[in-house]
Amino acid sequence: MDTIYLDNAATTRMRPEVLEAMLPYFCEQFGNPSSIYPLGQDASDAVAEARKTIAGVLGAEKPEEVFFTSGGTEADNWAIKGYARAHADKGKHIVTSAIEHHAVLHSCQALEREGFEVTYLPVDRDGLVSVADFEAALRPDTILATIMFANNEIGSVQPIAELAAIAREHDVAFHTDAVQAFCHEEIDVQALGIDMLSASAHKLYGPKGMGLLYIRRGVKLYNLLDGGQQERGKRATTENVPGIIGFAKAAELAAAERASEHERQSALRDHAIERILSEIPYSRLNGGAKHRLANNVNISFEFIEGEGMLLQLSFKGICVSSGSACTSGSLDPSHVLLAIGLPHEVAHGSMRMTTGRETTLEDIDFAVDTLKATIANLRSMSPLWEDFQAGKGESLIEKLGL
Amino acid sequence: MDTIYLDNAATTRMRPEVLEAMLPYFCEQFGNPSSIYPLGQDASDAVAEARKTIAGVLGAEKPEEVFFTSGGTEADNWAIKGYARAHADKGKHIVTSAIEHHAVLHSCQALEREGFEVTYLPVDRDGLVSVADFEAALRPDTILATIMFANNEIGSVQPIAELAAIAREHDVAFHTDAVQAFCHEEIDVQALGIDMLSASAHKLYGPKGMGLLYIRRGVKLYNLLDGGQQERGKRATTENVPGIIGFAKAAELAAAERASEHERQSALRDHAIERILSEIPYSRLNGGAKHRLANNVNISFEFIEGEGMLLQLSFKGICVSSGSACTSGSLDPSHVLLAIGLPHEVAHGSMRMTTGRETTLEDIDFAVDTLKATIANLRSMSPLWEDFQAGKGESLIEKLGL
Repeated sequence: MDTIYLDNAATTRMRPEVLEAMLPYFCEQFGNPSSIYPLGQDASDAVAEARKTIAGVLGAEKPEEVFFTSGGTEADNWAIKGYARAHADKGKHIVTSAIEHHAVLHSCQALEREGFEVTYLPVDRDGLVSVADFEAALRPDTILATIMFANNEIGSVQPIAELAAIAREHDVAFHTDAVQAFCHEEIDVQALGIDMLSASAHKLYGPKGMGLLYIRRGVKLYNLLDGGQQERGKRATTENVPGIIGFAKAAELAAAERASEHERQSALRDHAIERILSEIPYSRLNGGAKHRLANNVNISFEFIEGEGMLLQLSFKGICVSSGSACTSGSLDPSHVLLAIGLPHEVAHGSMRMTTGRETTLEDIDFAVDTLKATIANLRSMSPLWEDFQAGKGESLIEKLGL
Repeated sequence: MDTIYLDNAATTRMRPEVLEAMLPYFCEQFGNPSSIYPLGQDASDAVAEARKTIAGVLGAEKPEEVFFTSGGTEADNWAIKGYARAHADKGKHIVTSAIEHHAVLHSCQALEREGFEVTYLPVDRDGLVSVADFEAALRPDTILATIMFANNEIGSVQPIAELAAIAREHDVAFHTDAVQAFCHEEIDVQALGIDMLSASAHKLYGPKGMGLLYIRRGVKLYNLLDGGQQERGKRATTENVPGIIGFAKAAELAAAERASEHERQSALRDHAIERILSEIPYSRLNGGAKHRLANNVNISFEFIEGEGMLLQLSFKGICVSSGSACTSGSLDPSHVLLAIGLPHEVAHGSMRMTTGRETTLEDIDFAVDTLKATIANLRSMSPLWEDFQAGKGESLIEKLGL
């Protein structure tokens, strides 16, 4: 049975070109970039070249504004905790949104335990932060705002340029978790006025265990990892040379294909959404049709249980998820789906389908056909559905106009 | 020209068997271990198997005591900052040594800025912490002791079992940075009474960007990386699956060869030390002949400048270092060499030569022959040496009995 992988927001299949670029740095060019002999300096040069490539993709002013990390989570933790702790004398208030990734939310909560105060902005039905709400939340003691570029569950893309401009007017540093957006959306950190940006390689066909934090020149923050003098004394640890090389190669390739893949995958997305909503009753799209990542489909189905749906789809070789991979194992419904106003019952029956560069129209049609049969099958076994068919229950989607 | 790599304490050449073990997890078994479909669960199973392998090598009671990190630096930062912050209500005093790696020293300094107090124990001429000093330094408000297993510059191996036993008697948690020792020295965390241990894969022919923190069951610490539920909620971020698989393979192989390589490399080390000290005048061994890592040679030469020596050796294809790779670029003499009592002038002319599994006796003899010629050449150009030969200067090694 073939596998149809539609969970590219969880992770992606690394590209063979990326592996090829990394390979020489494992067993041959294995030097420590801090060493002065050629084996070390060659590794150091390769890291410098990779940093330049990524700075170019980001639109950073200088390569030295790019700091490599072990992933998006480390980048988020570093940006938020490092900036807050370094500027606590100026103020202890932070603004974020209710639908951030847990790497941001839990970092904020850790700071609350240290005496910081955090405003969690609500989002609208489409999962968007209101620019007016954002501005109103800024206070004289606000030092940092952190709003994700695009949501990992429902794909909503925030008005980052407007938010960053307002933050700057109020002298508040602006960080964005761009883990789902980097190389998928058009991002120019200078044009957008972003002070700090987190990204991760394995979301764009690069290696796991690699991320970056862009820090605009002049923005000061405390270290998260103290130690040696790597990354100009700001992020200690021997550089993950193959990972860095792979990240740069993946970013370069993804950036070159960004526009065409955005168009292609948007069409697949819209096709999937249209078919599902029209062919499967009592379903709703989560996140708006506009301001949405090109590869994200997130739909709730009433009268079924999400985990059963995922397992049945998995038996047919279809890989999708119920939400963030990082919270799997938890039985709580997604904080993102609750934030856009879904009741628990509806949130529980949700499915995220995220396409990738290898996804075809045939994959989508097969997945939708299979989904349709799966939902029908699950509903045929559901007492809730039976009651509803007998006129004894209700559809919350209909009743609440979701 | 062939390269003779004698800087295995800086990093090691990854083993082909390790690469082979990692390869399927880049582009084929690329699933996110948190995903419930087989592609994810297979990755999760592989990570669980790797954790079991490493727990076995460490002598841990349970695999769940092993937490994967991005390297030794993250493990040190997490252990020290995470434990101290979680137990600040019990006391704010930490005991460490003056010769720790900067990942430990700078973590301690970060805690000092947060109001913790740190005792930096001196070491003797051989780079060893005194057990009596250690016990005397423990106070009622001491919560944590962190003493490295073996020093990365001079190779001194500390009396870990005795130190850990004393810490336990005083109800003080005991952490050890075993980055240079794991799979090189015999380590059984239960037999030694270690509460937390840091290790790194790239020091034992594994991948860069991978490390671990062993945390004995029941030891509580705050997270360094907050976010998703990975690593049982203690260390968020999508698992670096290929890195974890590679680390386990490297540890398994290194552990199997440990005893034979220890014997073989000790003989190479002693041969190198004997030849250098007897054939090159005004040289001295740093670190004792006993309680020394099997692969470490560290020698100071008077009347020469260390960087010139390294560069000349590098031109001949010989890769050695002046000390820690993590502090290269700094012109300050090594804090370790100063701590064992060397004057700046002597510390500046030091060389660390660290063997590995591929090092042969021929390599050592060629390196020593080249070193001998290099020192003679550098001294022939040195005004200090000229003065000394004319009876106008002095040897600090002789004068101070170093």
